[in-house]
Amino acid sequence: MANITKKVSWSSRADESGATGEGTPLLNGSGQPRYCRQLSGGSIFQVGRLSTVDLEEEISAEEDSLRGRLKEIPHNEKLLSLKFESLDYDNIENQLFLEEERRMSYMGFRCLEISRWVVCGLIGFLTGLIACFIDIVVEELAGIKYRVVKENIEKFTEVGGLSISLILWVVLNSIFVMVGAIIVACFEPIAAGSGIPQIKCYLNGVKIPRVVRLKTLVVKVAGVICSVVGGLAVGKEGPMIHSGAVVAAGVSQGRSTSLKKDFKMFEYFRRDTEKRDFVSAGAAAGVSAAFGAPVGGVLFSLEEGASFWNQMLTWRIFFASMISTFTLNFFLSIYHKNAGDLSNPGLINFGRFESDRNSISDSVPVFNILCAGGLLGALFNKLNYWLTIFRISYVHRPGLQVMEAMLVAAVTATVSFTMIYFSDDCQPLGPDHTEEYPLQLFCADGEYNSMATTFFNTPERSVRSLFHNQPGTYNPLTLGLFTVTYFFLACWTYGLTVSAGVFIPSLLIGAAWGRLFGILLASITATGSIWTDSGKYALIGAAAQLGGIVRMTLSLTVIMVEATGNVTYGLPIMLVLMTAKIVGDYFVEGLYDIHIKLQSVPFLHWDAPATSHWLTAREVMSSPVTCLNRIEKVGTIVDILSNTSTNHNGFPVVIQGADGDEPSKLCGLILRSQLIVLLKHKVFVELARSRLTLRKLQLKDFRDAYPRFPPIQSIHVSQDERECMMDLTEFMNATPYTVPQDTSLPRVFKLFRALGLRHLVVVDDENRVVGLVTRKDLARYHLGKHGLEELQLAQT
Amino acid sequence: MANITKKVSWSSRADESGATGEGTPLLNGSGQPRYCRQLSGGSIFQVGRLSTVDLEEEISAEEDSLRGRLKEIPHNEKLLSLKFESLDYDNIENQLFLEEERRMSYMGFRCLEISRWVVCGLIGFLTGLIACFIDIVVEELAGIKYRVVKENIEKFTEVGGLSISLILWVVLNSIFVMVGAIIVACFEPIAAGSGIPQIKCYLNGVKIPRVVRLKTLVVKVAGVICSVVGGLAVGKEGPMIHSGAVVAAGVSQGRSTSLKKDFKMFEYFRRDTEKRDFVSAGAAAGVSAAFGAPVGGVLFSLEEGASFWNQMLTWRIFFASMISTFTLNFFLSIYHKNAGDLSNPGLINFGRFESDRNSISDSVPVFNILCAGGLLGALFNKLNYWLTIFRISYVHRPGLQVMEAMLVAAVTATVSFTMIYFSDDCQPLGPDHTEEYPLQLFCADGEYNSMATTFFNTPERSVRSLFHNQPGTYNPLTLGLFTVTYFFLACWTYGLTVSAGVFIPSLLIGAAWGRLFGILLASITATGSIWTDSGKYALIGAAAQLGGIVRMTLSLTVIMVEATGNVTYGLPIMLVLMTAKIVGDYFVEGLYDIHIKLQSVPFLHWDAPATSHWLTAREVMSSPVTCLNRIEKVGTIVDILSNTSTNHNGFPVVIQGADGDEPSKLCGLILRSQLIVLLKHKVFVELARSRLTLRKLQLKDFRDAYPRFPPIQSIHVSQDERECMMDLTEFMNATPYTVPQDTSLPRVFKLFRALGLRHLVVVDDENRVVGLVTRKDLARYHLGKHGLEELQLAQT
Repeated sequence: MANITKKVSWSSRADESGATGEGTPLLNGSGQPRYCRQLSGGSIFQVGRLSTVDLEEEISAEEDSLRGRLKEIPHNEKLLSLKFESLDYDNIENQLFLEEERRMSYMGFRCLEISRWVVCGLIGFLTGLIACFIDIVVEELAGIKYRVVKENIEKFTEVGGLSISLILWVVLNSIFVMVGAIIVACFEPIAAGSGIPQIKCYLNGVKIPRVVRLKTLVVKVAGVICSVVGGLAVGKEGPMIHSGAVVAAGVSQGRSTSLKKDFKMFEYFRRDTEKRDFVSAGAAAGVSAAFGAPVGGVLFSLEEGASFWNQMLTWRIFFASMISTFTLNFFLSIYHKNAGDLSNPGLINFGRFESDRNSISDSVPVFNILCAGGLLGALFNKLNYWLTIFRISYVHRPGLQVMEAMLVAAVTATVSFTMIYFSDDCQPLGPDHTEEYPLQLFCADGEYNSMATTFFNTPERSVRSLFHNQPGTYNPLTLGLFTVTYFFLACWTYGLTVSAGVFIPSLLIGAAWGRLFGILLASITATGSIWTDSGKYALIGAAAQLGGIVRMTLSLTVIMVEATGNVTYGLPIMLVLMTAKIVGDYFVEGLYDIHIKLQSVPFLHWDAPATSHWLTAREVMSSPVTCLNRIEKVGTIVDILSNTSTNHNGFPVVIQGADGDEPSKLCGLILRSQLIVLLKHKVFVELARSRLTLRKLQLKDFRDAYPRFPPIQSIHVSQDERECMMDLTEFMNATPYTVPQDTSLPRVFKLFRALGLRHLVVVDDENRVVGLVTRKDLARYHLGKHGLEELQLAQT
Repeated sequence: MANITKKVSWSSRADESGATGEGTPLLNGSGQPRYCRQLSGGSIFQVGRLSTVDLEEEISAEEDSLRGRLKEIPHNEKLLSLKFESLDYDNIENQLFLEEERRMSYMGFRCLEISRWVVCGLIGFLTGLIACFIDIVVEELAGIKYRVVKENIEKFTEVGGLSISLILWVVLNSIFVMVGAIIVACFEPIAAGSGIPQIKCYLNGVKIPRVVRLKTLVVKVAGVICSVVGGLAVGKEGPMIHSGAVVAAGVSQGRSTSLKKDFKMFEYFRRDTEKRDFVSAGAAAGVSAAFGAPVGGVLFSLEEGASFWNQMLTWRIFFASMISTFTLNFFLSIYHKNAGDLSNPGLINFGRFESDRNSISDSVPVFNILCAGGLLGALFNKLNYWLTIFRISYVHRPGLQVMEAMLVAAVTATVSFTMIYFSDDCQPLGPDHTEEYPLQLFCADGEYNSMATTFFNTPERSVRSLFHNQPGTYNPLTLGLFTVTYFFLACWTYGLTVSAGVFIPSLLIGAAWGRLFGILLASITATGSIWTDSGKYALIGAAAQLGGIVRMTLSLTVIMVEATGNVTYGLPIMLVLMTAKIVGDYFVEGLYDIHIKLQSVPFLHWDAPATSHWLTAREVMSSPVTCLNRIEKVGTIVDILSNTSTNHNGFPVVIQGADGDEPSKLCGLILRSQLIVLLKHKVFVELARSRLTLRKLQLKDFRDAYPRFPPIQSIHVSQDERECMMDLTEFMNATPYTVPQDTSLPRVFKLFRALGLRHLVVVDDENRVVGLVTRKDLARYHLGKHGLEELQLAQT
């Protein structure tokens, strides 16, 4: 993949006042001293890189004219996109905020805490309801589809002409998938996929546009129903996490911006810090509803998202998770006409495993499949990576995307049909008729085609059959063929423009080869090993495959154990997950991380790269910085905000020395969004006259505008008003975190990450602003094959 | 409780250059400008408090002479002790450190990472071994004891004279407990109790002297064996957590300071940051070994300890936990002559609960016992609180402590004997002889005394009997009496000068009343409810009681579920734990928090008190600050370090302006321990001559001295040397975190807590040092009944 976009590089930025998005180079109009970036800092890899940049700069000049056509091909894992902004996970402690906090009594804080619990309860309840809705609709629609196809197949099996059945099946699937793909591709592309990478980014502090909107939720729910009913190799569990997060972001704000409805509730929670906490609760509630795993949900939120950790928060997340699984359970029990029976805690139920004594000799065969999960997972991820690269380059129009989805649906149905058709693996129908849609096909009476139990079924049921069907239900050839085909189908499917999760397909692939392994092992040892039940191998295989693809360990262990309902399998599951992670990481990253990287998201990992002590704040910061005076001319502010080439979001506020000659000191930090609100409410002071503030601005005004602050273009400022002054004292964060210039990158990183900052001001020893560190300045550095590498910043 | 010690208060400190322990008021000899504390800051509660202080100041003057006698009575929950120092959970990034990091290649970091995993594996292995050792020794000794007593009782039941049996029992118990109490009281008082509060403090960042030493481990292990065999109402599970932590602190350092043995390994890990990570792994391994709950162990470490959170770290902790439970399991299986059977993952095994369908109607009765756990837990804690206050005042000599322990042992044995003696609850011996030591006493042949199954048994076995014995094994009166007596015995026992945990007694009490509740419920509903098995009520009761006492929710849920081995009980367990916490917190704090408070430990909670936005760094900081010049006279340094009245630990380093008149700017921070090493190695620069540094100091020199830096008194500095200068540039942390004076307390708190700081420098807008915030300055503020309260600092 040649990447042929305009790149704004590290060195060129300093000279050209290039664009790093958040509070970076621009000549300040108000006489602010400029501190030039010092290029002397000892970065060894700098020289080699600079030459590449120069080359690319040349190319980019002539490429510029082609940009219109090529602008949709910017993705490359060596880029960092400038289009993503950060969330403010640090409270903006300005005077208004402090005044409000100080006014609040102890009882006020207690009430807040109680309303936090109430919100979490609501989040859990609604997430559970959504999960329930999805489950019931999928169940009903899939039931209709499979019955129609089954009847058709049965009709034509005798008289011949099964190709008509095939066409019926293909058409039905394609229609569902088409609907699902159209709503996603045309209305809300962000709803594609499982949404887990997006939620990971959100919790990490990256603002992914539209990710927690109501519209996204609606499209996601409708889309996941279509794609599951459409017979794609997908699950409905992953999207639940995204759904839970959207519910949380909506409920906690006490209003819907999309519906223009404000309930005047929970106004205190209208800021990023609070919202993030609720979103992590929502994600946990989603996992909890999907797998019936409340503890697993909490751990998922923490393992995937949290740099923050707080006991009270954890308990609230836990509460939301519990309510979620309980709600789902309760309503499903009513649906299954068994009200009050709480044995369906999740969307997927692994069914009951008999607990038997766990022996060390049981674990020995497990060790044999330890590595397989990691290897197959890595293969899956690598294939999907190439496929995604291909898709980014060539399948980026909605029409094409819908067609690809339909193609996959058709191929899936055809392959399934072919596999079933040519399979001669007949099994006697059990006395209890556990099969939902047993296909007889060419089997004798009282028998059914066992290939159909895996292909002609919702994936959840297939997983359960693989776990629990009697030994001998499947012959090895059936399983082998199924594994191979389903592996490629699932890999092809993930990344389509449909809402779909990868959990269930992974489990299904793993269960298939796990069971196959168990059967083969039993036939080799002839007498049958101690684990005669190959269903257990299926469970271990499923865990290994899933672990190899998504690379979670702790949370996944708990999720699997909770879904299995039996702690006995905890130890082997842990072992395989850990090994799958280690083996898989050797080859390629986890699936979600790959997709995050391909989106060029400035994602901050847990630590700075190990070998980055070479770098200091001086080298990583952006400079010079656009600063504002504490009392600044409105015209200057409007000009700075209107500068589309820079589009800064944070501005250090400085105060001039007494005699004007003295250098100006840092005295605060103000955000674009705050300035916008100030301009909108015209909080100006006219020069040489009395103050003309129309009314005192309240915190409420900022909250009402949150989170969709209007663009600067929508605010009209007259020429007279441009001459007014604006007093920022009350609104700026008077105590921004700062670091000296010599602070090492790991230290800067730690501060930035631990406190969830958006802007970190770099000052010299006189407390003058010399630079600003933002998320992109830190996310740029990563450990590549040749040591520390720097990603290119690009305006994608 | 009158508290009659010398108190150094907030206001007096500022005037008297009082003692806050870490880097606080002292007149600086080198012409450093002093910034006085501004008393104008708006703390409303200040006036009322000041008068109390004045009063106490007067008292303290005359009390001073009595201090020798009274010095052991300083404890009061309104005090904050000055004797505890902080740990450095922030890397000291000085030039030496940075140079080392920069020298290290990517492979070097990989090797480090691998050695971290190796260390965690070792920690798990050794912790498992220790658990195994404790279990086997307890099993053997208790077996001998119970057999001897049983034979004796059987002998005297027929001929009369059971009082001899009683005496035998009492004497046996007392001897064991005496040994246990003597080693704890005389050799290592820190080994008393479960050690969980101490480990909580350690992970929080408080240096509790001797808490992770080898000697402590030895005493702890021996002590816990003695107290369990001595028949006290204690468990051996809590101390495992402490043991695991000690193992971790030892192994990770690659040497034993106590044994004077240095393996020259893991030298990189010889600092607080790294050690803390391993200690949290050790604590998790301890929980894991105690309850067979690896995931629960990880959660325990996180819920109780972590403000830090890092994915890689979590996985290592998880690894240590798994190895620990696996090791224990493996060796116990050999001991039980059943090698390879992995069904004993923990020290306590709840036995197998049948999984049956969970129905909502099952949960209804559960709601009835929801509150009981919280209430009984709160009662337990309150009683224990009063008892501890009493002990602190009157039982503080080793002799007395040993005698109290023996008294408790004797009373426990007597009460047990009496209860068994007067019980006429005979049960037929089961066909499978599940009872280990069935006492026939006055029962008919083929029957045994059922009171004896609970009293005449190790607590672990009693818990298991209560969970699993057939319905009808216990009559309600037996259970009621047992609950009441054991409740008071356990409450009396916790806090004795023996190594002992409170987990098992809590479980036992809860299991007893839970089962009682189940029996009563069944007899009321007559037909028998759906949960006819009262053993399940015992399980729920046990969870409720334990939750009510220790107030953990998430980790305890997982621990209980893992110990039960059945996820089906997850939901009810969660419910009772959550309710127990809410109900209990209404009355009194958790047991561990009470003990932490009574020790006056400067423990930092998760957040600053809600109503503390009133306070700013200016009000909470200590000032003026003792600063050092970057090139400072050795004599000055020695004098500052020798000042026993202040005993500072951190010193901001400042640099004088060019013309001497300019105010001096902050340029670094140096610790007492670093200065000590510098003085020891005589890294001096003689004035007016060439440099005389004998050799270049390495990071290794600091690491070798860690963590037991010699006191300043042990370092001899001649008069000539006093005139030399010392260049601190290379050794100071050149980029300490700073905050402006106006930063609100919650913001300061967040920075301090999230980064695990020890000293936070407060600067003015010219970057001059105006104050220093340390742990005590933040821990002082807490929410009391009347809003924000301030604790008194005391030199206890």
